[in-house]
Amino acid sequence: MLISFEGIDGSGKTTQARLLAEALRAEGRDVLLTREPGGSPGAEEIRRLLVEGAGERWSPETECLLFTAARRDHLERSIRPALAQGRVVITDRFADSTRVYQGAARGDLRQIVDSLHALMIGIEPDRTFVIDINPATGLSRGNARGGSEDRFESLGLQFQERLALGFRALAAECPGRVALIDGSGTANEVASRVRAAL
Amino acid sequence: MLISFEGIDGSGKTTQARLLAEALRAEGRDVLLTREPGGSPGAEEIRRLLVEGAGERWSPETECLLFTAARRDHLERSIRPALAQGRVVITDRFADSTRVYQGAARGDLRQIVDSLHALMIGIEPDRTFVIDINPATGLSRGNARGGSEDRFESLGLQFQERLALGFRALAAECPGRVALIDGSGTANEVASRVRAAL
Repeated sequence: MLISFEGIDGSGKTTQARLLAEALRAEGRDVLLTREPGGSPGAEEIRRLLVEGAGERWSPETECLLFTAARRDHLERSIRPALAQGRVVITDRFADSTRVYQGAARGDLRQIVDSLHALMIGIEPDRTFVIDINPATGLSRGNARGGSEDRFESLGLQFQERLALGFRALAAECPGRVALIDGSGTANEVASRVRAAL
Repeated sequence: MLISFEGIDGSGKTTQARLLAEALRAEGRDVLLTREPGGSPGAEEIRRLLVEGAGERWSPETECLLFTAARRDHLERSIRPALAQGRVVITDRFADSTRVYQGAARGDLRQIVDSLHALMIGIEPDRTFVIDINPATGLSRGNARGGSEDRFESLGLQFQERLALGFRALAAECPGRVALIDGSGTANEVASRVRAAL
């Protein structure tokens, strides 16, 4: 089973992915907790090119190609081997992030994103949780984290607002797979909503 | 005008690209001499992921995506601006390298290579010169260079032989655009053959 967590920067999805992994492990399941971009040694190297540096470092088209390259490596070297061993895979971001970030929020590239996905990736998660929060709250949490991985945060509040709308539209587009989770309240409150939806 | 030089590692194409650039400049033309993977700051960073490290570091599919990402950046930030200024662009490798290296020599991926090219790149050089030499000669020259950019050379002689056949097949496939140049003899002898073909 492949489960993905999605949402804007600072939405709390990383915490929720970890809490779900811990809960499933406590029930005796073998869980691989992973993330994108990254999740395999090669993909983590591509990650550095994507999340550091200036916002306009890459065009949206080049960015799509780099995210797809990282996803292909992650899929081949981490996700597929874990699924083949019967493990539950929980990933902090997957293809929906590319659909929303590059396909909706930066340039109108959804057709390119979909073509690249069909050609090089092909699979969807069994279940996706979008952690939905106020974009201003997310941005202030993301900025508070510090560190060098601030390339997307540097694109500003209007960008985060477009992302939040994009994720909500995606949940409406794929109601069977994507659940929109209210991200307000404590981490445990949000985790309860995720468990109820799962 | 966009001119590309192609060939196996150690074929002498880099020298030939430089000699043609010098000759055209001596005639008063404004020439951009560039290379792939690389040729723009972002693409040079992707280059390091591609030409260093172990041969099996990336699957052929991930490699296709990384080469296409580097080519897209090179095209957007170096090639297209130069062509728009009326400059002659000479590039040491372009899309034919991906067709032969990933499409023919490693995995049978020509269809994926062609789909990625149509989706993300779209243009072909006006003229392409394949410098054709004995694969064993090329490999020994490539190995003699030293340095850390030896990932493709590390794949061995049989790989270089498959590449040489792939480039010859490409020249037969596109006789109007691709000229196969005998790479034996001195650099100036080969350069004369290139000029005659141009």
